[in-house]
Amino acid sequence: MNYPSRLLDDAVNEISKLPGIGKKTALRLALFLLKQDEEVSVNLSKAIVKLRSEIKYCKHCHSISDEQVCGICNNHSRDKSTLCVVENTTDVMALENTSQYFGLYHVLGGVISPIEGIGPSDLNLNTFFERLESGEVKEVILALNSTMEAETTAFYITKKLKEKNIKITTIARGVPVGGELEYTDEVTLGRSIARRVIYE
Amino acid sequence: MNYPSRLLDDAVNEISKLPGIGKKTALRLALFLLKQDEEVSVNLSKAIVKLRSEIKYCKHCHSISDEQVCGICNNHSRDKSTLCVVENTTDVMALENTSQYFGLYHVLGGVISPIEGIGPSDLNLNTFFERLESGEVKEVILALNSTMEAETTAFYITKKLKEKNIKITTIARGVPVGGELEYTDEVTLGRSIARRVIYE
Repeated sequence: MNYPSRLLDDAVNEISKLPGIGKKTALRLALFLLKQDEEVSVNLSKAIVKLRSEIKYCKHCHSISDEQVCGICNNHSRDKSTLCVVENTTDVMALENTSQYFGLYHVLGGVISPIEGIGPSDLNLNTFFERLESGEVKEVILALNSTMEAETTAFYITKKLKEKNIKITTIARGVPVGGELEYTDEVTLGRSIARRVIYE
Repeated sequence: MNYPSRLLDDAVNEISKLPGIGKKTALRLALFLLKQDEEVSVNLSKAIVKLRSEIKYCKHCHSISDEQVCGICNNHSRDKSTLCVVENTTDVMALENTSQYFGLYHVLGGVISPIEGIGPSDLNLNTFFERLESGEVKEVILALNSTMEAETTAFYITKKLKEKNIKITTIARGVPVGGELEYTDEVTLGRSIARRVIYE
């Protein structure tokens, strides 16, 4: 598609760099912005640049934060004896959204992936082990995904914690609440019957 | 969803004002930008603001342009005797993409819609009739959509041009090239058989 304007061409190019947004959608978004008040474009741009330039990562848990220490780490009513290890801040948000967890988090910022050249030293693992030094943490919850890379990371962490007197748990996996057995994939269903739990 | 940062919250809010982008997609885009070099966010923002603040509309055809007069109106090899009336610049782009039309365009910037309070005076109709004054234009092609509002607009234009010695045509409607009769909607198929053309 030829664009009648270089400015439009530039905007479409930049917008289509975003994931899941092709040239057609980018054009639709650019034309939408053209129809709106200038304020809409200015506010959008400001928010994006501000986000990228001013965002901080909590020095304890590495979650996205506005301050040096995030709201969760700074909250004295949270249980400091449990530490939930997650891949990204989105996982923190998802878990917080459940209102079922009251401990602290530790965001790894990824998982060990030899293919992508991500080793243990590329993750926030040093600070994680440092946090365990004080002996305050009694339980580490591994809330990682089910990918090969995440399992490797979980294995690496458990191996490192072997000698420490810390309980290691992981989130329960099984048939989702409300999910039907008939439509559950074999691996999940197989695992949920093999690792069945006491009926409460 | 609660966001761990006000900056992230702001960015998600602004991004989700775009059409077809909900909060979840906005969050994904914001987190994507956070992972990229700062340059990506800065370039995106600059392109958006520049587009909105510097874009011009061709003073002849009202199409989006970087200059006072667009590339098409400024192109002396284009046929000045045919004028194709379209709703938006995207229609100009779609027609230009076919490489089948060599005349000029006139972008109305919308269609007459009493429900939305858009009357003839809200469209670029005055300049359209002015362009016809010189007598240079011999044919007006109505390349409007099939909506009720577009048909009304087409009717309004044809009525106004009645006394003028100008040929009025419209784009052919029928079964799309490569389309199967079986799957063509009744209105299109009915119209394409009723208004059949000489086989060439």
